[in-house]
Amino acid sequence: MQISPIELLGLVAGFFGTFAAAPQALKIIQTRQARDVSLVTYLFAMTGGVLWGVYGWAVDSLSIVFWNGVSLLMCASIIWLKLRHSGEPG
Amino acid sequence: MQISPIELLGLVAGFFGTFAAAPQALKIIQTRQARDVSLVTYLFAMTGGVLWGVYGWAVDSLSIVFWNGVSLLMCASIIWLKLRHSGEPG
Repeated sequence: MQISPIELLGLVAGFFGTFAAAPQALKIIQTRQARDVSLVTYLFAMTGGVLWGVYGWAVDSLSIVFWNGVSLLMCASIIWLKLRHSGEPG
Repeated sequence: MQISPIELLGLVAGFFGTFAAAPQALKIIQTRQARDVSLVTYLFAMTGGVLWGVYGWAVDSLSIVFWNGVSLLMCASIIWLKLRHSGEPG
C-alpha cells in the first residue's frame, strides 16, 4: 500500500490525538485516583470517535478511520478506569 | 456555501470530539480541583489538533480545519485551569 505525505501527516496527527488519552490512563493507574476526571468528557469523545470513523470511511481517509478506532479503545479504557477508581471525594 | 451530507456528518463528529473537553473544563471550574487530570494528555491533544488542522487544510476538509481550531482553544482552557487549580495532593 502506498502512503502519501499527506496521509503520513494524518497518521502523525492521529498518533498525538489518539495517544493523548494514554497519559491520563497511566495517571489513573499510578495514582488510583480519577475523581477530577470528567466521565462525560470521555463519553463525548467516544461518540465523536464513532462519528469520525464513519466520516473517514465516507471520505476514504485511512488516517481518520484507523486513529478513531484506536481512540475508541483508549476512551473505553479511561471510562473503565474512571468508574473503577473514582473513589471517595477528598 | 454548500455543505454536503458527508461534511455535515463531519461537523457533528467534530462537535462531539471538540466539546468533549467542555465537561472537563466545567468540572474543574465547579470543583476547583484538577489534581487527577493529566496535563500531558491535553498537551498531546493540542499538538494533535495543530497537526490535524494542517492535514485538514491539505485535504481540503472544512470539518477538520474548523473543529481542530476550536479544539485548540478548548485544550488551552483546560491546561490553564489545570495549572491554576491543581492544588495540593490529597
